[in-house]
Amino acid sequence: MKLLEERILKDGTVLPGNVLKVDSFLNHQIDYKLIKALGEEFYKTFQSAGVTKILTVEASGIAIACAAAEHFDVPVVFAKKGHHKNVGTDVYAADVFSFTKGITNTVAVSKKYISADDQVLVIDDFLADGQACMGLKNICDQAGASVVGFGIAIEKGFQNGGKLLRETGIPVQSLAIIASMTDDSICFADNN
Amino acid sequence: MKLLEERILKDGTVLPGNVLKVDSFLNHQIDYKLIKALGEEFYKTFQSAGVTKILTVEASGIAIACAAAEHFDVPVVFAKKGHHKNVGTDVYAADVFSFTKGITNTVAVSKKYISADDQVLVIDDFLADGQACMGLKNICDQAGASVVGFGIAIEKGFQNGGKLLRETGIPVQSLAIIASMTDDSICFADNN
Repeated sequence: MKLLEERILKDGTVLPGNVLKVDSFLNHQIDYKLIKALGEEFYKTFQSAGVTKILTVEASGIAIACAAAEHFDVPVVFAKKGHHKNVGTDVYAADVFSFTKGITNTVAVSKKYISADDQVLVIDDFLADGQACMGLKNICDQAGASVVGFGIAIEKGFQNGGKLLRETGIPVQSLAIIASMTDDSICFADNN
Repeated sequence: MKLLEERILKDGTVLPGNVLKVDSFLNHQIDYKLIKALGEEFYKTFQSAGVTKILTVEASGIAIACAAAEHFDVPVVFAKKGHHKNVGTDVYAADVFSFTKGITNTVAVSKKYISADDQVLVIDDFLADGQACMGLKNICDQAGASVVGFGIAIEKGFQNGGKLLRETGIPVQSLAIIASMTDDSICFADNN
């Protein structure tokens, strides 16, 4: 998606340890116009997939998921990290290991909000090692729900997540795939 | 706001310890249509306040803040909880004590995204003891930015936050103010 790639080139910065900082428009400060465009793009791809629910994980996925929800006209559910008193105990939960942080987080969704009837579009801002998305898929599996697609804003194509997700056979749309990055250059893979 | 009050009556549940569960439409599953209406309502109130930025805190405030941002045509910034590696060290931070959980969380905003020129609308889903909102105001104070309003979806009118916020002299709009609640009734205060 040209708009997103251009924005990454303009405002993204590369930090040591393969960290791409896009916090001026995506995951700390949010440019709602860009986010709306991302939501629309996911709709173009998955509009015929029979999506009944959009599932993401707090916090950075929420804005994009809501932007998409408006087109699909379905509810968003965001999985909560850690043990939230307010989620209750009747939850589907999955452990998500973060290679970047070296820690495991539990993500959980109340059983009330994902059911066997659901056709779920999983949305997230980043795809790196794929653990968050696989955790969300695991939650859908527990509920007997079908994952009909993964919608990702930025995929780090040089990490394993894309391969992992595509091996499930579920369609994956990454709006920008980074092939490589260094201090002074970011190269995109062709994602068409 | 009638729409929100009706929805709370229809789908909200009261749990022991003065917990109001609205996770079927506001802070776990999200009804994007309702959220859009909340955002529009904040715009009606604060459209002449010269808002340049909307500030909220992860995670539940993000959807409402984005819905409002579309009307104000300004960026959203969401404060991060805890110490996020990705926020960096150059931050404005404030400690927020949660009476409910009995713990203190640090919330932080990168110095890049709040400046002395900003006129900030603070938005959050809940107002109970007011510590989160006061923490966000504290961050704005550190940046030399002005808080021009507090926009709250649900205020627990029987807790101290509303008083605390209104004593600052900054306009507060709560779209639904709960005067009292028991297992089988929720009463609203007149917030017009």
